[in-house]
Amino acid sequence: MNYTTRSHVVRYAETDQMQFVHHSNYLKYFEMARLEWLSSLGISYAAMEKNGILMPVVSAELNFKKPLFFGDELSVRVGLKKPPMATLEFNYQILNQSDEEICTGGTVLAFLSAEKNRPMRCPKFLLDKFN
Amino acid sequence: MNYTTRSHVVRYAETDQMQFVHHSNYLKYFEMARLEWLSSLGISYAAMEKNGILMPVVSAELNFKKPLFFGDELSVRVGLKKPPMATLEFNYQILNQSDEEICTGGTVLAFLSAEKNRPMRCPKFLLDKFN
Amino acid sequence: MNYTTRSHVVRYAETDQMQFVHHSNYLKYFEMARLEWLSSLGISYAAMEKNGILMPVVSAELNFKKPLFFGDELSVRVGLKKPPMATLEFNYQILNQSDEEICTGGTVLAFLSAEKNRPMRCPKFLLDKFN
Amino acid sequence: MNYTTRSHVVRYAETDQMQFVHHSNYLKYFEMARLEWLSSLGISYAAMEKNGILMPVVSAELNFKKPLFFGDELSVRVGLKKPPMATLEFNYQILNQSDEEICTGGTVLAFLSAEKNRPMRCPKFLLDKFN
Repeated sequence: MNYTTRSHVVRYAETDQMQFVHHSNYLKYFEMARLEWLSSLGISYAAMEKNGILMPVVSAELNFKKPLFFGDELSVRVGLKKPPMATLEFNYQILNQSDEEICTGGTVLAFLSAEKNRPMRCPKFLLDKFN
Repeated sequence: MNYTTRSHVVRYAETDQMQFVHHSNYLKYFEMARLEWLSSLGISYAAMEKNGILMPVVSAELNFKKPLFFGDELSVRVGLKKPPMATLEFNYQILNQSDEEICTGGTVLAFLSAEKNRPMRCPKFLLDKFN
Repeated sequence: MNYTTRSHVVRYAETDQMQFVHHSNYLKYFEMARLEWLSSLGISYAAMEKNGILMPVVSAELNFKKPLFFGDELSVRVGLKKPPMATLEFNYQILNQSDEEICTGGTVLAFLSAEKNRPMRCPKFLLDKFN
Repeated sequence: MNYTTRSHVVRYAETDQMQFVHHSNYLKYFEMARLEWLSSLGISYAAMEKNGILMPVVSAELNFKKPLFFGDELSVRVGLKKPPMATLEFNYQILNQSDEEICTGGTVLAFLSAEKNRPMRCPKFLLDKFN
């Protein structure tokens, strides 16, 4: 993995009546992690979008190992599974404050030209950052 | 009140560890209700947005009377508090399957021109629908 | 697939600034579908929980084919991938109002005894319903 | 106001297709702020719940002044409107990274005995902390 996010406190609203974090929130944690990573590399995804480059999620997989509770402090380790191509394949590992593995997973993201509403190649400035 | 939504089953993901629906979801139910009402009047909010008319929420207030549980069937009664002007003032009442009052509240919405990013008056076709 | 949900209108709050439904919501649609299916079989998941049987999600995978927009009407086809064992493996297919395939995926759920906080076997009354 | 939260980066999933944060998230920011404040006073709400004291939201009001965008850094100033009684009345002000006022509001919280499912008085240890 290439980057570890700062720690994030689990919000009350993220729990459900099973008494731990609802599994759909892990996709939000993954997203937060990859955007925080891009940001740490000097890449503003907000600016990319303004320039007409969207990065929709094409597929995702998640493996839930242990529950995460309200008040826990989570961090996400994130990296690229392989060199960027037409898609970006991210890997994730979520840890809690005791460094226990909470969840692992991956997402594949594509590049979409907002103007043409069509897939596009990974922009060169991104390739450069990742290499 | 002018309109009652169809019934909606409370989703599991809407609960929190207090064992009932998280209060932030009621703003989503209010929104669902006013858009369902507009739709019943032949007004597509999606089309309005495409024509550059946004309706941001300016203020909101909520009074929580009784909890709503996973599996409950809620419906929302919605109406206008007063004739449409520069803003639309909606009233809401959420009921459960036993017709118990769960929540009352209101939201004020403004009209925003997406192009000019400036407030605008209530479009005439909306005024006509509400009168 | 064994069951198709009733149709659900995409909520405004489910979209993000990419102008379509945020991908984390699909896990909520999957959940809604399997609970609606259980309900159609006469199984109340709420009652199961009160009897101390929890069904946490162990893993999930999603393939996003086409975007889903505000106002779209989605339905979910859901079935079991294989006979129930220590886990339940669900398959899903989300369709829009034009019967376009929006998303496919699967989730694996385990059975957890709330009292013992330990995995347990699939309860017999569930096995009977699925067979 | 008595406390200012650390800064929180707006998550992508918190935006909607109007291109800014969906208004329902502000109730989650308010909640995050009051729990972070309690935590800074040495009060674990998680522990309170385990001891059977719940704090449901009884009413809420929000005034939206300016939009909050993906990537913005928000902080929340929070305080008590008046001395704690049977309820706690919180005030909030959300600011962005330029110290612009984004939202103001308030919530009233009650104390609920989980065991008796009945309202209870503000526990003494909480009164002591706030005085």
